[in-house]
Amino acid sequence: MTEQNDRVTKVAVDIIETIKDRLAAHDVNHQEFMAAVQFMGKLAGSGEMPLFMMVFFEAAVERITFDHKPGTKGAVQGPYFKEHSKIDPPYRLPMREDEPGDPIIFSGKITDLDGNPLAGVSVDTWHSGNDGTYSGFNPVPPEDNLRGIMETDENGEFRFASIRPAPYQIPHAGPTGQFLLMIGRHAWRPAHFHFKLNKEGYDPLTTQIYFEGDAIIEGQGDIVGGVKDELIISIGEGSDPEIASTYGVPVPYQTAEYSWRLRPSS
Amino acid sequence: MTEQNDRVTKVAVDIIETIKDRLAAHDVNHQEFMAAVQFMGKLAGSGEMPLFMMVFFEAAVERITFDHKPGTKGAVQGPYFKEHSKIDPPYRLPMREDEPGDPIIFSGKITDLDGNPLAGVSVDTWHSGNDGTYSGFNPVPPEDNLRGIMETDENGEFRFASIRPAPYQIPHAGPTGQFLLMIGRHAWRPAHFHFKLNKEGYDPLTTQIYFEGDAIIEGQGDIVGGVKDELIISIGEGSDPEIASTYGVPVPYQTAEYSWRLRPSS
Repeated sequence: MTEQNDRVTKVAVDIIETIKDRLAAHDVNHQEFMAAVQFMGKLAGSGEMPLFMMVFFEAAVERITFDHKPGTKGAVQGPYFKEHSKIDPPYRLPMREDEPGDPIIFSGKITDLDGNPLAGVSVDTWHSGNDGTYSGFNPVPPEDNLRGIMETDENGEFRFASIRPAPYQIPHAGPTGQFLLMIGRHAWRPAHFHFKLNKEGYDPLTTQIYFEGDAIIEGQGDIVGGVKDELIISIGEGSDPEIASTYGVPVPYQTAEYSWRLRPSS
Repeated sequence: MTEQNDRVTKVAVDIIETIKDRLAAHDVNHQEFMAAVQFMGKLAGSGEMPLFMMVFFEAAVERITFDHKPGTKGAVQGPYFKEHSKIDPPYRLPMREDEPGDPIIFSGKITDLDGNPLAGVSVDTWHSGNDGTYSGFNPVPPEDNLRGIMETDENGEFRFASIRPAPYQIPHAGPTGQFLLMIGRHAWRPAHFHFKLNKEGYDPLTTQIYFEGDAIIEGQGDIVGGVKDELIISIGEGSDPEIASTYGVPVPYQTAEYSWRLRPSS
C-alpha cells in the first residue's frame, strides 16, 4: 500500500495548482486542453516521456541541486546512461574497427578540493558516435560501444583513447521532436563526453565535457541547456609515437585534457 | 512537417518555465527529479496519461472555458465518453437484464436562454454501472451499456429509464491511484449522469447531473472537482403504472428531472 508522502504532496500539489493558474492566465479552453491531452497521450505511448522530462527539466534540477556546492561543476546525466563494464588499461573505449570520427586522446586528473590527487577514482564515461547514436539505445552500434569504466592511477590521472564526439540531434522523429518544432526550437546538443566520477568519501560527480568552437554552442545553443563555461575545453594535437602506439591511434591525433575537483561527501 | 505554433509556444513555454520555478522554490534535487521521471515513465507506460490529466486539470479548464457564459453550467467530459448510437423511444438506456441498481425515470427539458422549448436537441447520455465501470472502457459491461443518444420532442422534453448511478472510484490500481495515495487523496467521484446536448444554432453543452445527499459530495468531495451546486438535483419517487409499463420499470420507481438552458452559438 502506497503511503501519503509529505514531500510529494507539497511539491506535486504546488506544481498542479501552478499549472492550473497558468492555464487560467492564458485562458486555455477545453478544445485546446483536449489537444494537449491527446499530445501527452501520444508522447506517453511513444516511450519518450523520460526523454521529454530530461530535455526540459534536468538541467534546471541539476543546477538547483549542485551549482551552489564547491568542486567541479556537474552537468545533466541525460537519458542515455546505463550500467557499464570496467575496461582494462591502456584504456581505449570499445569501438568498431571503422568507428567514424577523429581519434582523440583524453587525459584527465582528479583531485580533492585542495588539489591533492585522488587515486582509485572510478571514472565512468560514455558518449555518442558521430552519427549521434548511443549504444544500448539504438540498434546500430554494438553493445557498450563508446562506454566504459576506468580508474585513476596513483597520481589521480587516467588517459583513454576514443573518437571525438560530434554534435547531434536528440530523437526528433517522435512527439518530443514534434513539440520542439511547435515551440520553435531545434533538437541539437553540442558534442560532449559524459563522466560519472565516484570515490568513497567524496560526493559522486555526474558531468560533461564540451568543446571550444562547437557549432551548437557558438550558434543556436544546447537544446537541453546543459552547457556551463567551465566545462568547455579546447582541443589540441598530439604526435607522441609511443602514446599513439600504446592507445592505438594514428599520428597526429587530437588531444583533450581536464582536471576535476571532488568535494568530500556531504 | 510540424510548424511553429505561437499559441503552443506561449502557453507551453510558460508552463515549462513555471514548473522550473517551482522546482527551484522547493529545492527539488536530482534524486527526487529522477524519481519523478521514473514515475512519469510508469504513468506513461500504463496508458493512464489521459486519465491523469483529466483528473487533475479538466475541471479547471472547463470552468475557465465556460463558467462566465450564460445558460446552464457545463461539467467535465471525463475520460469515458465515446461515440454513441441513437436509441428509439420510449427511451431506455441499453442495460443488462439483471443490471444492478435502482430503476430511475429521468425527465428532461431543454430551452433557449428565454425559456422557449427546443425541439430536436440531440441528448447524448452515458453513465457508469453501479460497480463503477463504464462500457467500452471495461471488459465486463456489454457494448454501449448505459449509453445512448435521444432527442427532445416538440415541447423540448425527453424522458428515459435507466438505473440510478452510484459513487465510484476512478481507476486506482495503477500509477494515478498510487499518486493519489502519495498526495493523501482518495479516488472517489460522486454518482452522476453525463450529458452532451447538441442543436444547430446553439453552443454544444457537455455537463453532468449529481444527486442531493450523495455520500461523496457530503463527505470527502469529488476527486475531480467537477461538482457545481446548480447541477445537483433531488431524487423523487414515482408510481404511475403507465410510465412504469411504458419504460419497463417496477412501481414505485425513482424519479429525477432537470431543465437545461442552451445559449446561442458564439
